[in-house]
Amino acid sequence: MNEDQLIARLLGTLPQHTEDVIVPPGDDCAAIQWTSDTAMLIAVDQLVEGRHYAPDGEDGSSCALAGRKLLARNLSDIAAMGGAPQYALLAVSTPQEHTEDDIEQFFAGIRDLAGTYDVQLIGGDVSGTDGPLVSSITITGRVNPERICRRRGARAGDLLLATGWFGDSVASGHHLNFNPRCREAAWLAASGAVTAMIDVSDGLLIDLQRLCRASGVSVSLDTDAVLRREHRTTVQSVLSEGEDYELLFAVPPEKAGDLRNKWPFSDLPLSCIGTFRESENESVTVRGKSAPEKPPKSGWDHFA
Amino acid sequence: MNEDQLIARLLGTLPQHTEDVIVPPGDDCAAIQWTSDTAMLIAVDQLVEGRHYAPDGEDGSSCALAGRKLLARNLSDIAAMGGAPQYALLAVSTPQEHTEDDIEQFFAGIRDLAGTYDVQLIGGDVSGTDGPLVSSITITGRVNPERICRRRGARAGDLLLATGWFGDSVASGHHLNFNPRCREAAWLAASGAVTAMIDVSDGLLIDLQRLCRASGVSVSLDTDAVLRREHRTTVQSVLSEGEDYELLFAVPPEKAGDLRNKWPFSDLPLSCIGTFRESENESVTVRGKSAPEKPPKSGWDHFA
Repeated sequence: MNEDQLIARLLGTLPQHTEDVIVPPGDDCAAIQWTSDTAMLIAVDQLVEGRHYAPDGEDGSSCALAGRKLLARNLSDIAAMGGAPQYALLAVSTPQEHTEDDIEQFFAGIRDLAGTYDVQLIGGDVSGTDGPLVSSITITGRVNPERICRRRGARAGDLLLATGWFGDSVASGHHLNFNPRCREAAWLAASGAVTAMIDVSDGLLIDLQRLCRASGVSVSLDTDAVLRREHRTTVQSVLSEGEDYELLFAVPPEKAGDLRNKWPFSDLPLSCIGTFRESENESVTVRGKSAPEKPPKSGWDHFA
Repeated sequence: MNEDQLIARLLGTLPQHTEDVIVPPGDDCAAIQWTSDTAMLIAVDQLVEGRHYAPDGEDGSSCALAGRKLLARNLSDIAAMGGAPQYALLAVSTPQEHTEDDIEQFFAGIRDLAGTYDVQLIGGDVSGTDGPLVSSITITGRVNPERICRRRGARAGDLLLATGWFGDSVASGHHLNFNPRCREAAWLAASGAVTAMIDVSDGLLIDLQRLCRASGVSVSLDTDAVLRREHRTTVQSVLSEGEDYELLFAVPPEKAGDLRNKWPFSDLPLSCIGTFRESENESVTVRGKSAPEKPPKSGWDHFA
């Protein structure tokens, strides 16, 4: 089983959710009705030493950057739904080899980013472990229930847009110091033009496949149109490496021009990288001069 | 540093919380204003293989009981504030030695108890790890903001009451199969008689000390009045072993008689085990024929 199948097995056999749960599990966040015009987004994400960063710092990581990355991954989940982050709770199990200073640095990495994104830490639990450091954050956010961006909703004919650059996330250090796209996502949600959205954590192909499955459409992806992080970045890395934490979203073609014209973030490019198509098999087809002949490994599974 | 100090270090240096946070971190749960007459309680708690249960099952544990215990610990945090549990999110990192059936059993242990306590699982994250299984649940609950039971609020002269039995939690298997006191806690909160409350997870002494510190009072604890789980249970185990997951709470003496008379749970005894006193040092004094001469180790620190 992979991560998606395991989670489906945990959550899928449960009784139906109550009407307060306006987005059930299966998206980047669940959503709960809060007030008449506000929903609470909520999600949990982990960071495991040796899986999400190298224990010896050979990927450029440090305790502070690991803490930063943990919160940043969670912020990206809130962004993917078009929300504004609000509260966070931290659970961390630390090995004995970690000094008090290591732990303080880990906390500082979280606190600093929390300050930048206006997130309040409202709970925590610490434990020891005989294994590597394992940490998780549960994050909440606020969103207008009528503007929530879900994985489902993309329609045949919609254009596929992406923020930013892809590939070489580890070699470049991007996986440790990226800025989650909360500001941009809130603007996109407010535009009302987005029919579906997801953030790219496990890989462009695998996350795009998730969006296609949730929406019941296929997509034709133009690999030439995807911006690469570095000159040396390969198409393989663009499609499968993951940890880009950029937004992928669908926009009806008649709204795309206006959206791109009004895009206010001059430091972050917006690219049109594909077109959604009707389909029964909900697949991703790659095209373009740079498209690989054989379909590449689709992405990164932190469980397998 | 111990657990409390570490958590204080994480959360204590943060900017002030907004007015929506009606109970900041430091209690069993934080509380956020929801509607005019409802607050959301929220807390996170972990379960680590080798710390909270034996990896080889020698304490009678199994994957299903471990999953059950994880959720039960969280439910007890909601109970401690007088709330009704509502939603849960699970994060779990599993070692490769665990089979898919192990993981399914772990999930089943969570799901079964979630059904009993009417908890909806609304999110999850799974990962692998090279160490022991580390899991956490973030739980939410609902409570009337005017009826929240906090650690602070006990006054000199209040009586100290406790539900149930103490000691020998591991030898008896109680730490794996206990029933969190949600029903009883909701009744206590609704009574309006409780001035402060906490659940006993780390040990009767250590958790009672936490309540005293939060309330700015001392307490005189009558060890003869504390019900023991088994005939063989020692006073040492009663005071320090922990994992009882019973409720400790303060009640003004003029309300205690009525509360005990109306207590509707005939299967669960209520004991008066002490009296709060004015004090500058917020200490726990033990008295009674069974009281140990030397103060025992106060409790269990999962971090140290």
